Amino acid sequence: MKLQEGPPESWRLRLYTIIFEADTRAGRAFDLALVGLIVASVIVVMLDSIASVRARHGTVLTTLEWMFTLLFTAEYIARLSCVRHPLRYARSPYGIIDLIAVLPTYLAFLVPGLQALIDVRVLRLLRLFRILKLGAYVAEFGMLGRALAASRRKILVFMFFVMMVVTIMGTLMYVVEGPDNGFTSIPVSVYWAITTMTTVGFGDITPKTDLGRVIASAMMLLGWGTLAVPTGIVSAEFTAQRMGRAPTTRTCHECLSEGHLPSARFCRNCGARLPAWQSDEGLWKPEGEDRAEPS
Amino acid sequence: MKLQEGPPESWRLRLYTIIFEADTRAGRAFDLALVGLIVASVIVVMLDSIASVRARHGTVLTTLEWMFTLLFTAEYIARLSCVRHPLRYARSPYGIIDLIAVLPTYLAFLVPGLQALIDVRVLRLLRLFRILKLGAYVAEFGMLGRALAASRRKILVFMFFVMMVVTIMGTLMYVVEGPDNGFTSIPVSVYWAITTMTTVGFGDITPKTDLGRVIASAMMLLGWGTLAVPTGIVSAEFTAQRMGRAPTTRTCHECLSEGHLPSARFCRNCGARLPAWQSDEGLWKPEGEDRAEPS
Amino acid sequence: MKLQEGPPESWRLRLYTIIFEADTRAGRAFDLALVGLIVASVIVVMLDSIASVRARHGTVLTTLEWMFTLLFTAEYIARLSCVRHPLRYARSPYGIIDLIAVLPTYLAFLVPGLQALIDVRVLRLLRLFRILKLGAYVAEFGMLGRALAASRRKILVFMFFVMMVVTIMGTLMYVVEGPDNGFTSIPVSVYWAITTMTTVGFGDITPKTDLGRVIASAMMLLGWGTLAVPTGIVSAEFTAQRMGRAPTTRTCHECLSEGHLPSARFCRNCGARLPAWQSDEGLWKPEGEDRAEPS
Amino acid sequence: MKLQEGPPESWRLRLYTIIFEADTRAGRAFDLALVGLIVASVIVVMLDSIASVRARHGTVLTTLEWMFTLLFTAEYIARLSCVRHPLRYARSPYGIIDLIAVLPTYLAFLVPGLQALIDVRVLRLLRLFRILKLGAYVAEFGMLGRALAASRRKILVFMFFVMMVVTIMGTLMYVVEGPDNGFTSIPVSVYWAITTMTTVGFGDITPKTDLGRVIASAMMLLGWGTLAVPTGIVSAEFTAQRMGRAPTTRTCHECLSEGHLPSARFCRNCGARLPAWQSDEGLWKPEGEDRAEPS
Repeated sequence: MKLQEGPPESWRLRLYTIIFEADTRAGRAFDLALVGLIVASVIVVMLDSIASVRARHGTVLTTLEWMFTLLFTAEYIARLSCVRHPLRYARSPYGIIDLIAVLPTYLAFLVPGLQALIDVRVLRLLRLFRILKLGAYVAEFGMLGRALAASRRKILVFMFFVMMVVTIMGTLMYVVEGPDNGFTSIPVSVYWAITTMTTVGFGDITPKTDLGRVIASAMMLLGWGTLAVPTGIVSAEFTAQRMGRAPTTRTCHECLSEGHLPSARFCRNCGARLPAWQSDEGLWKPEGEDRAEPS
Repeated sequence: MKLQEGPPESWRLRLYTIIFEADTRAGRAFDLALVGLIVASVIVVMLDSIASVRARHGTVLTTLEWMFTLLFTAEYIARLSCVRHPLRYARSPYGIIDLIAVLPTYLAFLVPGLQALIDVRVLRLLRLFRILKLGAYVAEFGMLGRALAASRRKILVFMFFVMMVVTIMGTLMYVVEGPDNGFTSIPVSVYWAITTMTTVGFGDITPKTDLGRVIASAMMLLGWGTLAVPTGIVSAEFTAQRMGRAPTTRTCHECLSEGHLPSARFCRNCGARLPAWQSDEGLWKPEGEDRAEPS
Repeated sequence: MKLQEGPPESWRLRLYTIIFEADTRAGRAFDLALVGLIVASVIVVMLDSIASVRARHGTVLTTLEWMFTLLFTAEYIARLSCVRHPLRYARSPYGIIDLIAVLPTYLAFLVPGLQALIDVRVLRLLRLFRILKLGAYVAEFGMLGRALAASRRKILVFMFFVMMVVTIMGTLMYVVEGPDNGFTSIPVSVYWAITTMTTVGFGDITPKTDLGRVIASAMMLLGWGTLAVPTGIVSAEFTAQRMGRAPTTRTCHECLSEGHLPSARFCRNCGARLPAWQSDEGLWKPEGEDRAEPS
Repeated sequence: MKLQEGPPESWRLRLYTIIFEADTRAGRAFDLALVGLIVASVIVVMLDSIASVRARHGTVLTTLEWMFTLLFTAEYIARLSCVRHPLRYARSPYGIIDLIAVLPTYLAFLVPGLQALIDVRVLRLLRLFRILKLGAYVAEFGMLGRALAASRRKILVFMFFVMMVVTIMGTLMYVVEGPDNGFTSIPVSVYWAITTMTTVGFGDITPKTDLGRVIASAMMLLGWGTLAVPTGIVSAEFTAQRMGRAPTTRTCHECLSEGHLPSARFCRNCGARLPAWQSDEGLWKPEGEDRAEPS
């Protein structure tokens, strides 16, 4: 994911190998030290936010924070200086995360309190997968991501409906309960509707009128049951993936209908013979039970 | 979904094309402007409900609300006037939604406070699917709906049992805890039972007695585990749909393979022609994505 | 489910036909009237529990309650008198429900307040399925029940583990937080643990110490993720049922190994040929996709 | 699971048979008595924690606790003395649980209050499965465990992401809401983020600012929908297991059908012999229910 270094400027190459590659001993040591520093800096920020701890160790913690920030800034500059196209790295996802990881401390000069956002550094831990060669985990991560991506349209449709329902229900409760009962405005009522439909139920706002409670009951049952939908969508996708059924965009050349099963031999729509199915990973070979076909 | 215009009264036809069709540039622009207006009017109503905002910009907001209402009323009248059968449109789902979208502002003369129900206008956003030609999304929406419809009986049976359980459990808690502990009446106790079984748990009413807490614990475990049932029902239906197993036991007479899609005309296994599929609602007519018909 | 009437005592037979059978017009009318009375009596008890309503209409409601109770008592006696074996009916599930439906009003003489338990009458609505000939719904109900029964062992094992976890976690929180923070005893802490693991989260008791909050966080993540287990169990069972895969206890006659797939032709353990699979409903015919076998 | 006794020292052998084996009448009686004592001791500790009960029966309860502890200590010593390798037993899972079951009462001398941890004894009830010969339940337990183990990588990846999200979201809310609104430090905010994403929603801390409520709404919808992921993972694994699809891509060399169980020796489709299955942990050895081995 990083850019290859071209001309043999040896200090740059050596730096690149240490920072970006993890095959040499120095590279590996660097990566592990980096992970340790990231975790340590996040813990320092967390401790600094606890009033009692800050009262006792404030100076130490602030010093440590600056130390971490300077180290990470130096590392960032080192990264930029040893790749061939610094701008391309700076715009890549990892590059942006690395930048966001150092910015908050500097921004805190302008807006005190933003310092806590240093915790965004934890995103840098995403590189853990690559560093520790957690290959199998990366593969699982990829499979998860692909399955979710395959059902993204269904999920978006579902979210659209949820937003519509909470808006209408929230407005209804605002009209029924009114500001005296805690529903001070429509946005607040929509916030309440979300806490209710997602079954979180903080309880900071609760319906007091009878009609309000009836509507709330209906919403709770609806939200409770509605959770079944995204779960069902995701389960179906994971199950299909697990059983060897990739999302088929298999098309019939005659009538252009889509969605034929991987194991189908004839088009269900026009009867024409379907060509063998090609997928991203080459010629798809059916796996699982439904290909129990002797010659 | 809208009615076709018959005789060539050109202003009517032109109006119809702009309002109902989205193929011409004018039609498309109209639709996008409409969506923008709907979203804007909903936001205006939301802002107007926040006391601090109303105090400062109340007049502007009220003016904007009337403007939107007049625009939508004019649009509604335009729709009615350019279709062949106005009454049929007024009674269609989209027609009813369009009417409900303009009524609240007028009803607010009679019942102040109902104005907020203008937010029901968001239902008009359902036409977004058609407008932006989100064909694939419409298909997904259709598939979701069909899968849910296929399991509707199981869901209804489940809901019946849930209502029975919350009624009995709520009554039991009313007897055990009593009005002094917040369970002021049986309906209120049923409301509490629903908050508990759906795991929302507002906390506005909580059991105080030991026996009450024991019963509550049993209800929580029951509700928590019971969520598995509708989720399982929906998951099973989605999974079956995803694996190509439509809710049918349609059989090929030649090779006796089963599970062919309702819209399939040829057997995917041997290529033989399938007889037309008969379902509970008469001869099934395919709709949606799997109706990939050649010329 | 009811006992057949033997000798032709015509009034008994006529009464039996009206009460227990739903094929004649009188029988059907009786059943519908019965359902109406059950629902009405439950509503009356609910209204009577609302203090404001009782203050205004208390006498009317109490009169109605007694009327309903007398009617149901008369009906119960009628049932007993027109069946051949009254004791057998009284001990059957429906018989017990019918008895519990009339008892509370009488018990209320001894223990005032029990009157509310009249709501248990809603259990009588279970006969709705039979009365209104909701055959398809009864079938769905049966399928749901069978699928759940098939996975009962897994569910029991799961519940056993949940009870162990909430007991240990509850005790741990009692030791960590202590009575001053609301965790007044171990049973109360177990009650809190259940509200937390089931994600209900009333909030009547919350951890205040840091260690307590850490343990609570772990419990919440555990409970949230653990919900996946019963859902997965039930989903798997429903999906298998939906895809035509009944719980197989198919046994190989040679080596006695079990659990062979319905479509398997050879024993996976010893290679012997498996006999065709017999199920409760006769010779099992594979359905679905995996039986795409031409002659 | 226990070590076999070697040389014939008859009292040792007799003791071993009683304590560890459950086939003789004495052995079975011992086991049932043991279970009864465990449950009784847990109940005693629970009762002792209720202030009102302790006030009235404190002495009796404390006496009973000591009696139980002495009994269990004697039993532990008996176990150690009649196995061949005491140290190996002491280090086994059951051995450690047995030790933890007696320690708290002694530790309570040093740290009063730890006595409640006696409830950890409930872990000893895990032996219930073996004692009552709940073979089928043990098998189910084994299947559950194997299915979960098979998806452990996906679950770990998921947990990693959840921890990252709650850390970042918690920090964000800390910055937005601040200590005045209850978010007193980043760890506390992370605790709140967990209560929200897991939909527990205690309500001890709630967002008060508008921006905070918007972020909270996003988190709730995210957490609510995210529950679908582990549920989907587990459902997919259970479904695959239920449909006979073990986590394997084992292929038959003759007919190329796939998905054979790890323990299968013959292809279920053509009867050919399958090669031994190699997995990540070396040559896979079957265990549990699907190891139906003929002579």
